[in-house]
Amino acid sequence: MLDVNWARTVFPPGALDDPTSVGLTSAHTVTLADESSPFRLDTGEFIAPVDVEYETYGTLSAARDNVVLVVHALSGDAHVAGWDYDAIQTGRKWRLRKPGWWDTVVGPGKPLDTRKFFVICANVLGSCYGTTGPGSPHPRTGKPYGLSFPMVTVGDWVNLHARLLDHLGIERILAVVGGSLGGQQVIEWMMAYPDRVEKAIVLAASAKLSAQGLAFNAVGRQTIMSDPNFNGGNYYGGPVPAQGLSAARMLAHITYLSDAAMDMKFGRRYRNKTKPDFDFGIEFEVESYLAYQGQSFVERFDANSYLYITRAMDYYDAAERWGGGNLVEACSRVTADTMVVSFSSDWLYPPAQCRELAAAFCQCGKPVTYIEVPSSYGHDAFLVETEIVGKLLADFLAREPKR
Amino acid sequence: MLDVNWARTVFPPGALDDPTSVGLTSAHTVTLADESSPFRLDTGEFIAPVDVEYETYGTLSAARDNVVLVVHALSGDAHVAGWDYDAIQTGRKWRLRKPGWWDTVVGPGKPLDTRKFFVICANVLGSCYGTTGPGSPHPRTGKPYGLSFPMVTVGDWVNLHARLLDHLGIERILAVVGGSLGGQQVIEWMMAYPDRVEKAIVLAASAKLSAQGLAFNAVGRQTIMSDPNFNGGNYYGGPVPAQGLSAARMLAHITYLSDAAMDMKFGRRYRNKTKPDFDFGIEFEVESYLAYQGQSFVERFDANSYLYITRAMDYYDAAERWGGGNLVEACSRVTADTMVVSFSSDWLYPPAQCRELAAAFCQCGKPVTYIEVPSSYGHDAFLVETEIVGKLLADFLAREPKR
Repeated sequence: MLDVNWARTVFPPGALDDPTSVGLTSAHTVTLADESSPFRLDTGEFIAPVDVEYETYGTLSAARDNVVLVVHALSGDAHVAGWDYDAIQTGRKWRLRKPGWWDTVVGPGKPLDTRKFFVICANVLGSCYGTTGPGSPHPRTGKPYGLSFPMVTVGDWVNLHARLLDHLGIERILAVVGGSLGGQQVIEWMMAYPDRVEKAIVLAASAKLSAQGLAFNAVGRQTIMSDPNFNGGNYYGGPVPAQGLSAARMLAHITYLSDAAMDMKFGRRYRNKTKPDFDFGIEFEVESYLAYQGQSFVERFDANSYLYITRAMDYYDAAERWGGGNLVEACSRVTADTMVVSFSSDWLYPPAQCRELAAAFCQCGKPVTYIEVPSSYGHDAFLVETEIVGKLLADFLAREPKR
Repeated sequence: MLDVNWARTVFPPGALDDPTSVGLTSAHTVTLADESSPFRLDTGEFIAPVDVEYETYGTLSAARDNVVLVVHALSGDAHVAGWDYDAIQTGRKWRLRKPGWWDTVVGPGKPLDTRKFFVICANVLGSCYGTTGPGSPHPRTGKPYGLSFPMVTVGDWVNLHARLLDHLGIERILAVVGGSLGGQQVIEWMMAYPDRVEKAIVLAASAKLSAQGLAFNAVGRQTIMSDPNFNGGNYYGGPVPAQGLSAARMLAHITYLSDAAMDMKFGRRYRNKTKPDFDFGIEFEVESYLAYQGQSFVERFDANSYLYITRAMDYYDAAERWGGGNLVEACSRVTADTMVVSFSSDWLYPPAQCRELAAAFCQCGKPVTYIEVPSSYGHDAFLVETEIVGKLLADFLAREPKR
């Protein structure tokens, strides 16, 4: 049982008294594949056991028809909203400072209103947050998989989460929603399970990553794999490849912001000084910000998971997967009413590429709503512009689905 | 004496027979500061000795009034045009495959016509190509400076090259031209030595690097400094920080191309295969390209030089340096007739920022020509779009200077 009084002493003052918060949350873990029924991956390999960690918010209706599946992005996890009770026990200390990653959107009276919807989010396969990943014990050796973990894809993630829904007795979902790599899972959901999805909301994502995006991921992985502590992925129990992972995260962070946002936020200001020290330490505010982002990421993320998840991001190509290279063909499978939302200053999944997805739905006569939100926050806008994103979500969920 | 017949056996067939090439070139080195008259740096420190390596093409007129100074960018050097004879002796083997970095622009009958102009280019201070840098011997220990090399600035580079002109007996230059970090040297030349510059051409550069640019440089340096071989900069004589330098170069290369150029050039094509291998090796063409760029850079560049030169790029801010933060004030010092050329898809020094520089000249009534060249080549366009750049250069040099 959750000891709320004790939890009050751990979380920020007043955090648990907010009536629009889902409050204290606790994750569930379920084993969805074992030796007798291993999970088949896109590569053809099998993996077992497979545990999936997930959280739910709100109450499943008797008709089981109020499910909203939220899918997380690269560095996200199942803890979407509220205050993570488990963090006290598990030592995920960084979770004690902040609520879930989409707390502004999920909760009583919020756009994904937990008085109406039963919201589910599960960690992806390869994750470092409870779902089986490269840090999990290899069934034969008992030691962490490391790079012997099989390659996973966006398709695998969706297939595994479909199994989770089976396990929960949920046949059809009212809506699936996610941003960035989460948005690509939404696309995969619509195409792989057209009969199970009523509405789909793709935020800040397109049907495939651009060459530039592939390039950034490649550099990020190189920084990790050339870290002296990386040791071919066998670093568990010893020092982690902190410098490499930190550099990869710093780099990724640049792609999440826009040039304009960085100029507004940091410009060329020096860090706590008016003149430079003329050295290779932290001189500029923006360097300090990135260094902080890099370091705090190392505290909370596993370098191997970063490798696997960015690779899955590389491979995803909805047109290739479902339309023999033709996106219109792929979209013609879909029955969900779809909304695609892009953000004007996003240069990781630029509006033009998101619009291409929406246009493909149009071309095969499928219902689609496309919105480009003017924002200077870059790719991060899907997490930052919660007022407008929330309004778009609430309105889209409230209306009768188009067929 | 240059043995042309022997050289013919070394360089590509026909290379030395091209009448529009400057042919075989050989660098000069001059000591411009010694213990008795050390060179004063922007930081207030002094350095001696200081050697400068430079090349010249064409013939200095009797009136010494036909000098065009070319200034090089981050990874460039004094070898602008022709075939490097010294490379045979010095082991700079990578120079035997290609002529100088702006060979399409400098030569007999080319835009910077060496039948008319005396073209000079010198390596910057901190370089690894002959001018004193972190790989040079520290005068007290005889061992390479490494990170004990003093911090250098764009201002230092220009001051040192002004000394070189003094040494060559050249008071005034007809034109100074450069792109990227070279373009920032051009700006500094105009402002620091207004009486010495008649015309100035700034390509793909603005008066300061953006926060995003600072951020990319910071990540590049982190990858170098966290390489296991970096050893605080003391790696000379041992294995170099190849992985780190390679990652830094890969990252920088992304910023030199445009998203559109990468899509055209590589798209999401797999490397020599139609399906992925599902591993962390080279899967995509773009990964192969970047890996090649990274590796070949390691062959020809020193990691410490990369740190110093990117830091100089960070620090440069013409407005802060010459106008108390006001770019119009800074521009009001200038007497040169100026041309600023930006490239539409350049996102390292975007057109809007280049236009800001041109606008500042306008605002203080100085003659300026601003051109935005439509190009999909990104920042690299200043090196790639040689036909249009050459035409702009030739026309600008041919016309009477505006006052």
